[in-house]
Amino acid sequence: MTLRFAIHHRSTSSGARTGRVETPHGAFDTPAFMPVGTRGSVKGLLPELVARTGAQIILANTYHLLLRPTPSTVAALGGLHRLMGWPGPILTDSGGYQAYSMADLNAVDDDGVTFRSIVDGSEVRLTPESAIAAQNALGADIIMAFDDCPPSIAAPEPGPIAADPRLARVLRRDAQLDPRARLLLANERTVRWLQRCKDAHGRAHDQALFGIVQGGADLDQRTWSVLRVCDIDLPGYAIGGVAVGESPDDIARVVRHTAPQMPEHKPRYLMGVGYERDIVAAVRAGVDMFDCVLPTRNGRNANAFTPAGQIRLRNARFADDPEPIEPGGACDCEACRPVWTGAPGPFSRGTLRHLFMSGEMLGPILVSLHNLRYFQRLMVDIRRTIRDDDWPGFARRWPAAGM
Amino acid sequence: MTLRFAIHHRSTSSGARTGRVETPHGAFDTPAFMPVGTRGSVKGLLPELVARTGAQIILANTYHLLLRPTPSTVAALGGLHRLMGWPGPILTDSGGYQAYSMADLNAVDDDGVTFRSIVDGSEVRLTPESAIAAQNALGADIIMAFDDCPPSIAAPEPGPIAADPRLARVLRRDAQLDPRARLLLANERTVRWLQRCKDAHGRAHDQALFGIVQGGADLDQRTWSVLRVCDIDLPGYAIGGVAVGESPDDIARVVRHTAPQMPEHKPRYLMGVGYERDIVAAVRAGVDMFDCVLPTRNGRNANAFTPAGQIRLRNARFADDPEPIEPGGACDCEACRPVWTGAPGPFSRGTLRHLFMSGEMLGPILVSLHNLRYFQRLMVDIRRTIRDDDWPGFARRWPAAGM
Repeated sequence: MTLRFAIHHRSTSSGARTGRVETPHGAFDTPAFMPVGTRGSVKGLLPELVARTGAQIILANTYHLLLRPTPSTVAALGGLHRLMGWPGPILTDSGGYQAYSMADLNAVDDDGVTFRSIVDGSEVRLTPESAIAAQNALGADIIMAFDDCPPSIAAPEPGPIAADPRLARVLRRDAQLDPRARLLLANERTVRWLQRCKDAHGRAHDQALFGIVQGGADLDQRTWSVLRVCDIDLPGYAIGGVAVGESPDDIARVVRHTAPQMPEHKPRYLMGVGYERDIVAAVRAGVDMFDCVLPTRNGRNANAFTPAGQIRLRNARFADDPEPIEPGGACDCEACRPVWTGAPGPFSRGTLRHLFMSGEMLGPILVSLHNLRYFQRLMVDIRRTIRDDDWPGFARRWPAAGM
Repeated sequence: MTLRFAIHHRSTSSGARTGRVETPHGAFDTPAFMPVGTRGSVKGLLPELVARTGAQIILANTYHLLLRPTPSTVAALGGLHRLMGWPGPILTDSGGYQAYSMADLNAVDDDGVTFRSIVDGSEVRLTPESAIAAQNALGADIIMAFDDCPPSIAAPEPGPIAADPRLARVLRRDAQLDPRARLLLANERTVRWLQRCKDAHGRAHDQALFGIVQGGADLDQRTWSVLRVCDIDLPGYAIGGVAVGESPDDIARVVRHTAPQMPEHKPRYLMGVGYERDIVAAVRAGVDMFDCVLPTRNGRNANAFTPAGQIRLRNARFADDPEPIEPGGACDCEACRPVWTGAPGPFSRGTLRHLFMSGEMLGPILVSLHNLRYFQRLMVDIRRTIRDDDWPGFARRWPAAGM
C-alpha cells in the first residue's frame, strides 16, 4: 500500500476523528488543511514559508499544469516535488473540475471531455486514462480520479462560485438538459470512469489514487454513488461536487449524509471546502482532509481571517493602526509575529494597508501567510478538540466557526 | 557623531578601501550595496529574506513615502524600521531626484520644487526644510540632502533611463534653457540648499545627513561642487547626478575625478549605480556605498545576473533545463541553493521559466533574491579583493565586470 492511515482519536459526541496519513514523501496529521498551489506554486510564497505555516501537504491542479508547462516538462524537471520545491506530500486533482468549470466546453461524452486551453486556445482532450497519465507524470503522492462533475442541481441560488461567468456558461448549457437526467448520467459515468482510472494507473506502487463520490445535492444519488465508488478498492475516497455554490447548510447536509457511509478506515477528503464552519461541520461528520483557495485568494485581496471574522485591511480605519492583524499575540504567523529574530516587531495593520494601497507584493504575501497560518491553527485546535472532546471550548475560541 | 566610519584596508593599486560604518541601528561593511525598498518594501521580499542575501543596509524613497502613506503615518506606525520590518541601517533619499524625474514639474525655484503627486494629482511642495522634515519623521539612519538635480548635459545620447518618457519630458523642458546656465544654477543652488538642510535637521543626534556633490559631466563643475559641498561639515557625502543616462565610460570618468577629492575619512556614496563594471570602477576610485534597483527590477523581469552576464529566463531554451541559474553550486541564493533544509533541491531554470510564463509571483521573488545575492556576493568579493589587492583574480571571477 502506498498510503497508510492510522486513526488516533475519536470524538465521542460526533463522527470526528484524528489520525495520520503516511505517504512516500512523509506524513500529515488529520484532519488536514491543504494549501492550494494551482500552477505549482502557492502564490507568492517560498515553500519554506508555506511549511512554516504548519502545512504538511499541499495541492496542485493538473488542469493548469497539463496546459503549462505540461506533465512531460514537469517530469523532465524532476517531478512535481522538485517543481514546487516541496519535500512533503502533494495531492493533485484530476483536472476534471476545471475542465468543466473553467474552459469553453466543446464536448463531454462517454469517453471524456474536450475543451479549449485557456493558455493558447488549442483543443485539449481529457479522458480517465489521460488524466491519470498526466498525474503519473507529475508524480504527486495522492492523485484523484477523473470524474464527471456536473453543477449541483439543488443549489437554491447561484453562490459566489456559480456567479463566476465561466461556470455560469456551463450552468446555462446544462440547463438545456434535464438536470436530473444529467446528474444520473454523471453519477453513473463517474463510476465507470473510476474503474478506468484504476486500470490505467501506472504508479500504484507510489501514488495513492482516490475515488470521488458524486451525486449533487440528491441524498439518494449520494448513497448510490458512495456504494458504487467505494466498492472499487482504493486507498482513499473524496466527496466531490459540493462547494459549487450551495449554502453552508446544504454543504453540511450532503456531507453529513455521505461521509459516514464512506469506508471507516480510509481517509475521507472533502474537495474545495471551505470556510471555518464548513470545515468544522465536515470534521464532525468524519472528514479528514480539506483544501481551499480561500486563505490565499482572500489574502491577496487584503482580507485577513481572524477568529472573530474577516477584516478588510484596505479599510481606511486601519491607516494609522499600529496593531498586528490579531492583537494580543494569539497569532504566530510571519505578519503578526515574525520568526526572524531580527524583526523589529509585527507588521502592523497600517503597514499592511499601505502595502496593499501601494500595490506592493509584500501585502498579498504577508496576509496569505497569515491566513494560511490561521487555517493551520484552526486545524491544530480541531485535532486537539477531537482528542479532548471539548467542542464548547472550541466554539468559544473560534466564533467565526459559527457553532 | 551619529555615524562612525572606520577604514580597514586600502588597495595599493587604486583608491579602493574597505571599512565599516556604524549607525544607531547597527553596522555595515563597505564597499556596500543597498537594495532598494522604494515604498517601504524591497518588492516581494520578506525582510528576513533580504537579510539572507547578505544585505546589511537598505534604502527607501522619501518621494514615494511622502505621497503615501505620508511621513506622519509612518511615524504613527512606529517609524520606518517598523514599517519596513528591518532592524538594521536604512538610508532615505530626499525625494529630489524623483520630484524632478517622475512628476509633472510645475516649478523649480530658488526655494524648492512644486510638482503633482503621482498618487492623487494633488500639488506637492518640496523644499530643503520639508524634505528634511519628512526624513526626520521617517527616521532612517542616513538621510540625504535635498538637491537640485538637473539632467546631465553631457550624456552623448539618451541611455535606458533617459529613454523613460517621464525623464524625457524634463529633458525637453530643460532643452529650452541654456543647459550650461541650468547646470551652474543647479550646482550653486545645491550648495545653498545643503546649508538649509543642515540647519533644518532636527535629528542630527541619531540621523546622519549626507551632502550631495553635483556638477553633471563637467569636471570643473564637479570640482567646484565637491569643494563647496564638502566644506559643509557632515558625516558623509554622495555623488549625485550620474547614472542618468551616461555611458559607463562617462560614469567612470566623473567618479574617478570626483571621489578622490571627497573627504578621505568619511563614507562616499555613489547614488543609483549600477552595473557590475560601474560599481567596480567606482570602488577603485574610492567609493564606499552603492544603491540600485537593477537586481530587483531585472529580477522581476526574469533577467538573472551571473558572473558571465545576464540570462533571460523567459527564453524557450530554458523550458526543460533542470539546472539552477548558476550551475555548479557557486551561488548560495534561495533559488540556486535554498537554505531550508527541507528543500528537495534548487529551483531549476525550467521551473523559473514556468513561474514567469504563468505569471506566478514566485518567479519575480526567486530571481530578485538571486540577483540581490549576486550583488552581495560581488561586494563580498570586492572587499576581499581590496584586502588581498588581487584585481586580476577578481577580473577572472567576474567577467561581467568587464575589467
